Amino acid sequence: MIPVAILGGSGYTALELVKILLRHPGAKIAAVTTRDRESPHLADVHPSLAHRIDLRCEPYDADRLVKLGVRCVFGCLPHGASMALLGPLLDRGLRVIDLSADYRLRDPNVYAQWYGESHSDLAHLAQAVYGLPEIYADEIASAPLLANPGCYPQTAILGLAPLVAGRHVHTRDIIVDSKSGVSGAGRSPKLTTHFPECNESLSAYNVGQHRHTPEIEQALTDVAGEPVEVIFTPHLVPMDRGILSTIYATPRRPMSQGQLIELYREYYRHAPFVRMGERLPATKDVAHSNFLDLTVRVVRERVVVVACLDNLVRGASGVAVQNFNRMFGFPETTGLL
Amino acid sequence: MIPVAILGGSGYTALELVKILLRHPGAKIAAVTTRDRESPHLADVHPSLAHRIDLRCEPYDADRLVKLGVRCVFGCLPHGASMALLGPLLDRGLRVIDLSADYRLRDPNVYAQWYGESHSDLAHLAQAVYGLPEIYADEIASAPLLANPGCYPQTAILGLAPLVAGRHVHTRDIIVDSKSGVSGAGRSPKLTTHFPECNESLSAYNVGQHRHTPEIEQALTDVAGEPVEVIFTPHLVPMDRGILSTIYATPRRPMSQGQLIELYREYYRHAPFVRMGERLPATKDVAHSNFLDLTVRVVRERVVVVACLDNLVRGASGVAVQNFNRMFGFPETTGLL
Amino acid sequence: MIPVAILGGSGYTALELVKILLRHPGAKIAAVTTRDRESPHLADVHPSLAHRIDLRCEPYDADRLVKLGVRCVFGCLPHGASMALLGPLLDRGLRVIDLSADYRLRDPNVYAQWYGESHSDLAHLAQAVYGLPEIYADEIASAPLLANPGCYPQTAILGLAPLVAGRHVHTRDIIVDSKSGVSGAGRSPKLTTHFPECNESLSAYNVGQHRHTPEIEQALTDVAGEPVEVIFTPHLVPMDRGILSTIYATPRRPMSQGQLIELYREYYRHAPFVRMGERLPATKDVAHSNFLDLTVRVVRERVVVVACLDNLVRGASGVAVQNFNRMFGFPETTGLL
Amino acid sequence: MIPVAILGGSGYTALELVKILLRHPGAKIAAVTTRDRESPHLADVHPSLAHRIDLRCEPYDADRLVKLGVRCVFGCLPHGASMALLGPLLDRGLRVIDLSADYRLRDPNVYAQWYGESHSDLAHLAQAVYGLPEIYADEIASAPLLANPGCYPQTAILGLAPLVAGRHVHTRDIIVDSKSGVSGAGRSPKLTTHFPECNESLSAYNVGQHRHTPEIEQALTDVAGEPVEVIFTPHLVPMDRGILSTIYATPRRPMSQGQLIELYREYYRHAPFVRMGERLPATKDVAHSNFLDLTVRVVRERVVVVACLDNLVRGASGVAVQNFNRMFGFPETTGLL
Repeated sequence: MIPVAILGGSGYTALELVKILLRHPGAKIAAVTTRDRESPHLADVHPSLAHRIDLRCEPYDADRLVKLGVRCVFGCLPHGASMALLGPLLDRGLRVIDLSADYRLRDPNVYAQWYGESHSDLAHLAQAVYGLPEIYADEIASAPLLANPGCYPQTAILGLAPLVAGRHVHTRDIIVDSKSGVSGAGRSPKLTTHFPECNESLSAYNVGQHRHTPEIEQALTDVAGEPVEVIFTPHLVPMDRGILSTIYATPRRPMSQGQLIELYREYYRHAPFVRMGERLPATKDVAHSNFLDLTVRVVRERVVVVACLDNLVRGASGVAVQNFNRMFGFPETTGLL
Repeated sequence: MIPVAILGGSGYTALELVKILLRHPGAKIAAVTTRDRESPHLADVHPSLAHRIDLRCEPYDADRLVKLGVRCVFGCLPHGASMALLGPLLDRGLRVIDLSADYRLRDPNVYAQWYGESHSDLAHLAQAVYGLPEIYADEIASAPLLANPGCYPQTAILGLAPLVAGRHVHTRDIIVDSKSGVSGAGRSPKLTTHFPECNESLSAYNVGQHRHTPEIEQALTDVAGEPVEVIFTPHLVPMDRGILSTIYATPRRPMSQGQLIELYREYYRHAPFVRMGERLPATKDVAHSNFLDLTVRVVRERVVVVACLDNLVRGASGVAVQNFNRMFGFPETTGLL
Repeated sequence: MIPVAILGGSGYTALELVKILLRHPGAKIAAVTTRDRESPHLADVHPSLAHRIDLRCEPYDADRLVKLGVRCVFGCLPHGASMALLGPLLDRGLRVIDLSADYRLRDPNVYAQWYGESHSDLAHLAQAVYGLPEIYADEIASAPLLANPGCYPQTAILGLAPLVAGRHVHTRDIIVDSKSGVSGAGRSPKLTTHFPECNESLSAYNVGQHRHTPEIEQALTDVAGEPVEVIFTPHLVPMDRGILSTIYATPRRPMSQGQLIELYREYYRHAPFVRMGERLPATKDVAHSNFLDLTVRVVRERVVVVACLDNLVRGASGVAVQNFNRMFGFPETTGLL
Repeated sequence: MIPVAILGGSGYTALELVKILLRHPGAKIAAVTTRDRESPHLADVHPSLAHRIDLRCEPYDADRLVKLGVRCVFGCLPHGASMALLGPLLDRGLRVIDLSADYRLRDPNVYAQWYGESHSDLAHLAQAVYGLPEIYADEIASAPLLANPGCYPQTAILGLAPLVAGRHVHTRDIIVDSKSGVSGAGRSPKLTTHFPECNESLSAYNVGQHRHTPEIEQALTDVAGEPVEVIFTPHLVPMDRGILSTIYATPRRPMSQGQLIELYREYYRHAPFVRMGERLPATKDVAHSNFLDLTVRVVRERVVVVACLDNLVRGASGVAVQNFNRMFGFPETTGLL
């Protein structure tokens, strides 16, 4: 049993992570930290955990985590807070899976440009591996610091990877139209996520300005071996969980739907959590699971890809455990089926 | 056209009130006040009002309202704030319809007990009329200060009035089990109304402690001519609007369902907004309307009443306009159908 | 008061139409027909209409409608059923506003291709006017037969009209990514609209095959004066009402966001129901109204338009009454604010 | 690994059961039957099962199940269908856990009265054990035929058991006001569960006539050792899953809230899935789990109990596996945490 710790226990990704880890045969939650002054029982923060885990949140203390024998730390803090706290853990030899955005963008200038503050932990940023298992499998196994991928980006990257890897589409006119449930906005109440405001409503937000844009482009550029640009439009949908992205790309030469399906099947034939199918997927079918469902269509010579996932599981805590499995030598699906 | 003003323009009841008044042939919105420092356009506070009303919110100023010729003021402020501001308007001869709870309870001790602060405007409290049109029709027409009834209480009071008026049921073992949509909790974001917390969830709250309890009992005691007590349990339901109350009472002597239906039909035969029917009502059928739908059943010698309404229209702004109609001599349904 | 009739009273558009017409000062509902054997009271079919209209549905009988003095008939039947019944009414001199798709496509071959059956009323098809008031204002006033526009198409057509009218964008690579609430699927229960299937779920459907595609293209080709093609992807969103379309187009020459906003404002300056704004719109702000909210952004040299409306009001019954107003000489907004 | 079969694979309880059994270390799904003519892949019936189970549904054949070595059969058929098929399996020595209502009521006359048809399998009815583990623990272990309890009844029975067991409350004036999510209505589309009908709506149904009434009374009478009667009112709430019951009872002698909480804690101290707490429970906290959350309050000398569960897990398939665990000697929580 690998002792693990979770930094920042109050949000939805931490809750989801605890639930997954409680079913994992090779991990044991040794500590959960909080930035609150008090040290509440975890089950008071998340009533659904009552009778399932008996643990009091505690203040962050790197030395104590070492003393507890923790070998892997999951960072569930907001961006900015993450890069302020993770360094000391890495320096003490703990491995870190960071669910924030702090270590996802390799170029600190891009970070500064999109997140509005300069990166404060350049030393460790250089060691970080972007943790999308279907793309960066090899680097993940040995990564000291793993930057867990964003929820939206996974749909865009895995939805487009087979196309850009084989140079099948133009890389400058890709459109990613994404729709997300409300839990993606976190657990802090605000007017836009107040029930009577967002229930029975649908809207686009951060059009052309969402911080997941450079993350999508960085990974797709890696896959393509040439610069990839996307227009990314997120929308807020009145449901708890789920992201569905509809992606439009222009083929460089005509491809049939059959060829495309084959291309995707082949590309993901070893990926246990990517379900490439012929039917149009629905977020409900991936809810509470680590699967990413995917299909592809040809419409008027354009390629239309539809990809969806559960933003809290596959989009955050599930893929974090998938990465943990790779980092600590467990079968990739352990605890996730 | 009667010039009217709305105090406190940022909440859901103010929004609903504006929409209703815009359709009212005899009222004209002369001013909307705000407690914010800035004076935003009303359509910036409520985007649904764009192109429908061109008005800037303004600071509260009793003299200015007089100067504008305002004859009726609708108070859409939270309790506590209301009783601090309405007095000067009443003293200047304006009539007031207050949607807060400040003037609903005749006894200031009861107010202090349930609202946790003493009443600061006893002078006007004595003049206030409880504005439930089906019960207090006569007093309403001439009231200088009208205390608009609460949303939950209307279902309980109108659901029970025919029973207690005729002394048909015991008055000490009545149970009111009420369920409300989330807009009833107001427009200020908090964790309990954060979409991912309350969506797909159902819970009881304030069991035995909800402030609408004494309001229900005061009105039913008036109707009964003897003390009435209720056990009132509110619940939060994942929908925008709508309240449905299921009410249980014990008959003093056996009554058939047919007799009960007849009793209710007779009691409400002149009430244009009470729809007594034989089918079980659903909140959707009263949504965005001023109707209160009602039916009654006999189950194992108990009477079960089901009553529902739209908490923002019939439960607040619609009944306020119904009261306005009575106070200013318009037909009761003006602007409300 | 113009006596009007509604053909097909059981669906959501009929219900919405009745509610709007009940507030219209110049129209009177003389008859509502049904294809059911029985002749239920309209309020039994739609309980929300109880105490608002006292009318029994009746079998379709063209002569009886003439006898009742009906001057305008609203067709709320499914496609196919409409073209089988409307001819006799037109031949008797009644004017018809058809909410089905039967008379929207000028070319009967296109109809046959997308609807899978040949058109059975070519005579009247030739007289039909496509009833999008902001585009076909003049023809509407004198139309004997008005083909009320589809819900999705209105967002696409009005979202793109200013761009294609001025030849500002390429007309062969337009993408319309649309999202709709569930009432757009009608009132007949099926698995895809069964609550536990579509609640908390999001999916694309009919990708590249939705019947609104040729309707969008026909109108945009009219506006552009050159062929326009779109890729149209509809999605099902877990909410009652509302459509939001996110539209992507490539400018022929660089345009600033300011120029685009100005272009749209100018184009719609006389359109009382088009609200061109700078903020990103939300379906909640147009719910239960006849407004279409719109904004435009520039992202990486692409134009991104976001347009939304209430699919039952502006998308169907509201725009039908807007057309009725133009056809019978009422101010365009009568009964709709 | 115990080979098990599921009769009737197309509904929600079957889906939930498959998901739970896939995680169970001691059970193996050997067959899933269908009444459809075709034999679809289970993952085509339930897309969420893709890549998780590779099984084709097959026609019911008792001999084949024996040949497959099946030792336990879960019946996920509608009432009526169950009693027609389960007998032959019992006669062949298979143990059966029936999720329908067919074997819950001991008295066939009561069955006939509430279900409108006479019971057709009296022989096995006599052997059936009502499978509420917290009440009938001993009988369950050796039961050949287990009647899995209803979703509503569990909240009522476990919510009241400590009170009636100790004769703390009167047994003739109990009120159970229950609210359920829509998945409780099954997977067959009908108007009442059509999304635009039940979303944003709340209603009571089957008032005084719901078939779970005699089931509640039978079990509570067992616990009390005297006849117990309840007034049971179910409501439909716009959410997928979850039942919350608010229960009102009159104490025979005054009890404090503290005494009641202690009484409940003591009663359930060995029940791993009953979470008796002091906070008011919410269905979200039990969603997708086998927990039943519970609290108790004193209001005006009445006892108010609030109990909730997930209707598909604890209310059906989860408790079925809890019973399976008891019947086959696994620890009670196996596969359920």
